[in-house]
Amino acid sequence: MANTFDGNTRSYALKSDSADLAPWNFERRQPRPDDVAIEILYCGVCHSDLHVGRNDWGFTQYPIVPGHEIVGRVTQVGDDVSQYKVGDMVGVGCMVDSCRGCSACHEGLEQYCLEGMTMTYGSPDRHDGSLTQGGYSDRIVVSERFVVSIPDKLDPAVAAPLLCAGVTTYSPLRHYGVKSGDKVGVIGMGGLGHMGIKFAKAMGCEVTLFTRSEAKVAEARENGVDHVIVSSDDEQMAAATETFDFLLDTVPVPHDLNPYLNTLKYDGTHILVGLVQEVDPALQGGNLVMKRRVLAGSLIGGMPETQEVLDYCAEHDITCDIEMIDIQNINEAWERMQQGKVKYRFVIDMQSLKNA
Amino acid sequence: MANTFDGNTRSYALKSDSADLAPWNFERRQPRPDDVAIEILYCGVCHSDLHVGRNDWGFTQYPIVPGHEIVGRVTQVGDDVSQYKVGDMVGVGCMVDSCRGCSACHEGLEQYCLEGMTMTYGSPDRHDGSLTQGGYSDRIVVSERFVVSIPDKLDPAVAAPLLCAGVTTYSPLRHYGVKSGDKVGVIGMGGLGHMGIKFAKAMGCEVTLFTRSEAKVAEARENGVDHVIVSSDDEQMAAATETFDFLLDTVPVPHDLNPYLNTLKYDGTHILVGLVQEVDPALQGGNLVMKRRVLAGSLIGGMPETQEVLDYCAEHDITCDIEMIDIQNINEAWERMQQGKVKYRFVIDMQSLKNA
Ligand SMILES: [Zn+2]
Ligand SMILES: [Zn+2]
Ligand SMILES: [Zn+2]
Ligand SMILES: [Zn+2]
Repeated sequence: MANTFDGNTRSYALKSDSADLAPWNFERRQPRPDDVAIEILYCGVCHSDLHVGRNDWGFTQYPIVPGHEIVGRVTQVGDDVSQYKVGDMVGVGCMVDSCRGCSACHEGLEQYCLEGMTMTYGSPDRHDGSLTQGGYSDRIVVSERFVVSIPDKLDPAVAAPLLCAGVTTYSPLRHYGVKSGDKVGVIGMGGLGHMGIKFAKAMGCEVTLFTRSEAKVAEARENGVDHVIVSSDDEQMAAATETFDFLLDTVPVPHDLNPYLNTLKYDGTHILVGLVQEVDPALQGGNLVMKRRVLAGSLIGGMPETQEVLDYCAEHDITCDIEMIDIQNINEAWERMQQGKVKYRFVIDMQSLKNA
Repeated sequence: MANTFDGNTRSYALKSDSADLAPWNFERRQPRPDDVAIEILYCGVCHSDLHVGRNDWGFTQYPIVPGHEIVGRVTQVGDDVSQYKVGDMVGVGCMVDSCRGCSACHEGLEQYCLEGMTMTYGSPDRHDGSLTQGGYSDRIVVSERFVVSIPDKLDPAVAAPLLCAGVTTYSPLRHYGVKSGDKVGVIGMGGLGHMGIKFAKAMGCEVTLFTRSEAKVAEARENGVDHVIVSSDDEQMAAATETFDFLLDTVPVPHDLNPYLNTLKYDGTHILVGLVQEVDPALQGGNLVMKRRVLAGSLIGGMPETQEVLDYCAEHDITCDIEMIDIQNINEAWERMQQGKVKYRFVIDMQSLKNA
C-alpha cells in the first residue's frame, strides 16, 4: 500500500438511546491486506438504523454510527485486494465480515454464518474486537469480500437502498422460487414493499398490494401493481381466498397472519422479511396443514446475491424511489420514517457532512 | 353388474356427541358404474375418529360411523371399473371423492381439492347428498379412483393404518425433500410419530425422537431412532441448537414451536402434520427470518401417493405396529387412545362384527 490511510472519520452518531444523532469524529482502522478504503458518497436510511440507535433490540453500545446502505468510491486498497481498484464505485450492505469457513459462508450465505455475521455497525470486529461503525460517515474500511461493485448503469444514490431493502426483497423471491405468471401479494408499501413490487413485476408476476389504507390505492397503481386489496376490508380479503402463489410480507410489527394465509392457494408460501417479533394474534396451525402452505422467513441476502441484485437492477432498469437529504436533517428523517412518511427511502448525500 | 348389492350394513356408530359407540344397521347405496363394493376386514382407529365422534370440530351429524383406515376384499364392481376385480385386497383412506376437475385433483392432490374433498365419513356424498359413513362397518361402496391396492407382501391388518397415519407422515417427508443423510427430528411417538421414524430411517436419515417423557427413551431405541432428546430438558434442547434439517411435528395439541425451531439449521423445515389449532405460545417471527427457516404444513396425501406409500412399505418391509381389537372393545380403545396408551395403532378385526 502506497500511502498511510487517513482514518480520521467524520460521522453522525448517537451517544445514548435517548440522544439525537449528532456530529462525532472517530478513527477508522488502517486497511488490512484484504481491505478496501471507501469514500462514502451516499448512505440509505433503514428502519434497522433506528431500532439499533434506540437500542430496541437491547445490544447497542454507544456511541454508535448507523448506516448499512453505503455507496462510495474506493480510495485505497490493501496489498491482497484483487477485485477492486482506486476509483471504483462500490457498495457495502448489512455485513462487513463473517467466519468465512462454515457451510453458510461457503454457500455465499454469509448472513447465516454459523458463527454469526459481523454487522456493518454495532458488531465487534473479528480481529481487533473494536465496534464496527456504519455509513453515516465520510469513509469506511471493509474487506473486499464484503464489498460489491455498483454497475455503471446505476445512479449511485438510488443504488444505495438496494444494499439492504433491495436484496431483502429480491433474495426470498428468488430463493422460494417465484416465477413468471405467479400471483404475488406484497404486504405493506414502505421501503421494502415498494422494492418487492418492482422485483415481482420484473419477474413477470401479477402483483397485488395489500395495504391497510385506502389512501395508498392510487399510489400503488403508480408503482405498477396490478391490483390493490385494502386489508381492513373483510369482503376484499374474503374475495381473495386461495388466489395467491406467494405473499411477501414486509410488515415489521406483529400482525394477524391468518387472513393473509387464507389468500394463498394450496402449496402457497407466505414469506416474512420484516417480522422478528411474536406472531400475534396467534397463527392457526390449520391454515398451514389443511392446504400444505408454508410460512417462511428470509434475512437480507448473501454477498453473491447482493451483487446479483445490483446487476439485476442495472439490467432491468429498476431503481429505488428515494428522497435525498443532508446529514443535518437526519433526526427529522428518522422521525418521518417512523411515521411512514417517506416515499420510499431516505438517502443521505454525504457531501453534506463536509458542512457539519 | 351381475347381482344386486346387499346394502344392509352392520356397523358401530355414535348417536350423539355424548354416546358410546354402539351397534347400528344402515343401508349402503347400490354401486354406481365406477364404484367397487368392499367387504371390510380391518379398520384402523385414528384420533380423528374420536374428534369427529365427539363433535370436537363442530360439524358432526349423527348417527356417525367413524373409520378411515379401511382394508378389505372387493365383492362387486360397477360396469366402468377397470382397476379392480372381485377378490382383490384393497384399501380406502381418508377420502372417498373430490371434484376430480380442479388443478389439485389433476395433480393427484385430491386432499386439497378446490371444491373440498368428500371425507370417508361425515361428508355429504357429491351425487345424492347422503352422509358418508366410515369403516367401523362390514362393507363400503367407493369409487375406484379413491381405492388403492394392498400389495400381496403386506399383511392386510397392519396395512390399514398406512392409509392415514402412514401417508400423513410419508407424504411431507417426500414433498419437502427429505433425503439420505439428512438429520430428521420426529416430535412425538404415537401413531403418526412411530411411522415417521420408520419412514425417515428407511430414507437413510439420522433420526432423533423428541419426547416429553424419559420413559419413552428405551422404547424409542427399540423403534430404531438414533438419538432421543427429552424436550422438557432445556440443556438437551440447547445442545441440539441448529443441528436438524427437518422436524416432523406430530403433536396434535398447542405447543411451543420456538425451542424446536431453534434446533433447525438455517434453511431447515419444521413440518406440522398434527396441529390444526392455534400456535400457543406465540411463534417468534425471528426464528424463521433470522435463519431462513420454514414452517410448513401437510395433510394426509393424495391418491397416487397413498398407493405409493403402500408399495414403499411392501418394498422396504415397513409395517405399522398395531394392537388388534374386537369391535366390541372400541369404546375402551378410544379411551386408551386418548390417554396415549397404545403401541401404536388399534386395528379392529371386523370379523368380530359378526358376533355383535
Ligand atoms: Zn437495513
Ligand atoms: Zn461462517
Ligand atoms: Zn386419520
Ligand atoms: Zn378437485
